[in-house]
Amino acid sequence: MNFRMIAYSIGRILTVIAATMLFPLFISLYYKEGIAVSYLIPIIISIALGAGVSLKSPKHKELFIREGMVIVALSWIAISLVGALPFYISKAIPSFIDCFFETVSGFTTTGSTILTDVESMSRSLLFWRSFTHWLGGMGVLVFTMAIFSAKDTRTTYMMRAEMPGPVVGKIASKWQFSLRILYMIYIALTVIEIIFLSFGGMPLFDSVVHAFGTAGTGGFGIKNDSIGFYNSAYIDYVIAIFMMLFGLNFNVYYLLLIRKFAQIKGNDEAKWYLGIMVGASLIIALNIMPVYHTFANSFRYSFFQVSSIMTTTGYSTADFITWPMLSQIILVLLMIVGACAGSTGGGIKVIRIIILLKAALHSIKKAASPRRVFSVKADGKSVENTVVHGVLAYFVIYMIFMGLSILIISLDNKDFATTVTSVIATMNNIGPGLASVGPAGNFSEFSVLSKLVMSVGMLAGRLEFYPILVLFFPSLWKRT
Amino acid sequence: MNFRMIAYSIGRILTVIAATMLFPLFISLYYKEGIAVSYLIPIIISIALGAGVSLKSPKHKELFIREGMVIVALSWIAISLVGALPFYISKAIPSFIDCFFETVSGFTTTGSTILTDVESMSRSLLFWRSFTHWLGGMGVLVFTMAIFSAKDTRTTYMMRAEMPGPVVGKIASKWQFSLRILYMIYIALTVIEIIFLSFGGMPLFDSVVHAFGTAGTGGFGIKNDSIGFYNSAYIDYVIAIFMMLFGLNFNVYYLLLIRKFAQIKGNDEAKWYLGIMVGASLIIALNIMPVYHTFANSFRYSFFQVSSIMTTTGYSTADFITWPMLSQIILVLLMIVGACAGSTGGGIKVIRIIILLKAALHSIKKAASPRRVFSVKADGKSVENTVVHGVLAYFVIYMIFMGLSILIISLDNKDFATTVTSVIATMNNIGPGLASVGPAGNFSEFSVLSKLVMSVGMLAGRLEFYPILVLFFPSLWKRT
Repeated sequence: MNFRMIAYSIGRILTVIAATMLFPLFISLYYKEGIAVSYLIPIIISIALGAGVSLKSPKHKELFIREGMVIVALSWIAISLVGALPFYISKAIPSFIDCFFETVSGFTTTGSTILTDVESMSRSLLFWRSFTHWLGGMGVLVFTMAIFSAKDTRTTYMMRAEMPGPVVGKIASKWQFSLRILYMIYIALTVIEIIFLSFGGMPLFDSVVHAFGTAGTGGFGIKNDSIGFYNSAYIDYVIAIFMMLFGLNFNVYYLLLIRKFAQIKGNDEAKWYLGIMVGASLIIALNIMPVYHTFANSFRYSFFQVSSIMTTTGYSTADFITWPMLSQIILVLLMIVGACAGSTGGGIKVIRIIILLKAALHSIKKAASPRRVFSVKADGKSVENTVVHGVLAYFVIYMIFMGLSILIISLDNKDFATTVTSVIATMNNIGPGLASVGPAGNFSEFSVLSKLVMSVGMLAGRLEFYPILVLFFPSLWKRT
Repeated sequence: MNFRMIAYSIGRILTVIAATMLFPLFISLYYKEGIAVSYLIPIIISIALGAGVSLKSPKHKELFIREGMVIVALSWIAISLVGALPFYISKAIPSFIDCFFETVSGFTTTGSTILTDVESMSRSLLFWRSFTHWLGGMGVLVFTMAIFSAKDTRTTYMMRAEMPGPVVGKIASKWQFSLRILYMIYIALTVIEIIFLSFGGMPLFDSVVHAFGTAGTGGFGIKNDSIGFYNSAYIDYVIAIFMMLFGLNFNVYYLLLIRKFAQIKGNDEAKWYLGIMVGASLIIALNIMPVYHTFANSFRYSFFQVSSIMTTTGYSTADFITWPMLSQIILVLLMIVGACAGSTGGGIKVIRIIILLKAALHSIKKAASPRRVFSVKADGKSVENTVVHGVLAYFVIYMIFMGLSILIISLDNKDFATTVTSVIATMNNIGPGLASVGPAGNFSEFSVLSKLVMSVGMLAGRLEFYPILVLFFPSLWKRT
């Protein structure tokens, strides 16, 4: 393990995070909130720590995949610790574990909150909270790499560890070029959403933070009733549609730009993603008709919640724990399915679900006719056996992680729905779950241990388990 | 698909089931219950149907694995339909779907009941109900094959489809010989339990039916408070220990008989099974100490419930839905883990859990060091890649089945814990779940659709999915 290089990389990321904190610092100065020091201290700490380890470039720049994983995992923990300081120093959130939970929830684009009254927070802190979503959405390392012109391909290991989805895709060869294009798409979509929201009468500040939360599929709101506060069908639809867009594989936009329409048409994941979203919205719309009277009204709420949950954003316009159990179960299943790979969303990811379903079908066929040859197909091509095996193993890791987390959270002695869905909502980076952690609830009542376990879960879910899990196995750090 | 041979095989099984119904018939005559006709009609139907298709041996006796699966699946459905008739004709259970649910629950050794007052049932029906557990425990086809001296090895396909666990094991070569030995062990253990229970003051009838329920890891009781009714630490421990024994891989007893002690010592599954059981009992005992005051008392209840749930029996001496959430979550996780392969218990099975955990670990190691060679080991030997892949696929099928079942059950609009655990409790062949379907509850309140889905789930869980799933894919029935 090249520890020197690991420290160097984390140092660089810390200096980038210090730079991003200048935004909330200026906002707090602009609004004369008197909490500038809450940003200055972490900025100074980050720069001091970051510069200390990254000023001198290491002799041996060798990076293997395990170093890439450790860098990603430790960077995310480091930026969450530093990013938590503004909440702590400003005394806006008194307990440090709560500050940490909130910041992890921000960077991982989860959106689960320990705040009981978000409206009492100062503007700069609300901005920082939502900005972490925006930064975490595309990946903090990806962001760092897009800035620094590191031309070495070794860094792809880091990118691979941070980017969601089972396959990195063909764009990896010219990755830095591609990264910048992806980031430009990300920025463009965010700006367009801000314009649309402002056009609908939402104040500029609100538009910006909500666009951040949408873009990162995070879901931190700035009102106690989340998006429901604005009570506008136009705003509901704008946000619902943008959540849907940010949950789509970004390769689709890339292909759109380079006009490869045939490849988009053949993209199974996009088709399934949109199909599931529309199907679930329709079923729930019918299921909640008794509550919302007209189908149009019913669909407005069902589509928003489905888009919000499936993209793992977590904004809400309705308290869905009051909906019939069918709608609640559909939403919980969508939490697990998640968004597309290569998007800013979490969950297992639609492409993995497709492969899992096809692998299951394949296994049934094989059991009935052991000698016949079948293959698992996606996007019209056979999926390699090692990829299928990898997805199956991923699913098992996911389930074991979930089971163990639920076990530890159950020490808090909450009801069954809260215990189970608090874990599902955090490790899939959703935000709200059911019962006490539903859209109208929050995560403040959990013990320190549970908050720690859920923070690890959010990080594990965002980084797709392996980087975080590697930290728990020191035997894997050694050189071969 | 050799339909003639399928009909022939099912016919033979029906005649065997007709024979087994003579026992409750005699009991009903002995106690002068006046419901002899409730047994005579299904006996006549079974013999007529069974003899009709199985008198003449088919010309082509070829059986492939898919025929084996279809025979197993349809046989279990057929015997459940016939076995339900006594409840229906005697009017003890007015609705036929309830009779079917109860009988499927019996044969699959689930033990979930739709009865709200089991003590009002006549003795012969209580006997039949528990007898289905005993018959279903070892497998109805296995039973049929152990009786008929069919010397053709083709029938191993059926056995393989009915016997639980990922690997049939080495005893398959002399399978009929082995089957008889296994059945003798089964009978011997059952008789020993009856003696132990009678010795503890339990009436003979009660001892017999409870031994049936233990042996099959079924769990139908004859008292509204299940085993708690007898309020005896001796009886609690006898049943808890026998449940544990019946949940162990029967190969262990076989190896004991042929004195291969070294092989028993190297059996990972047995070690994990006992280790998990003891560990879970100790943790729960500590967790429920506030309720039961002394550790001895606490352990008595925790060990019984753990043994009952992990072996998927479902007897209860305490209403564990009143226990702290940690204990409830441990029990739910144990429901999913289940007993050993090659036992009468259900669930995923301990050996599969071992392989899943090791495959997960393997995948983490591989992710960190892609070029190093690792292998998944069990019983000191490397597990073949295809077996690992098969177990992974099994787990995915299990989870998809569970997700879809929960989705349909949620139409009944019960609370989250009831919706989720009713599915877990039935498809793992446990019996009770949490909330409304806890030890003091029952399954009577569900809709016809839900009862049907759970019946399919019980059958799928007992037959390890493939035979039941093959029925849903007619394209697989065709000959290649």
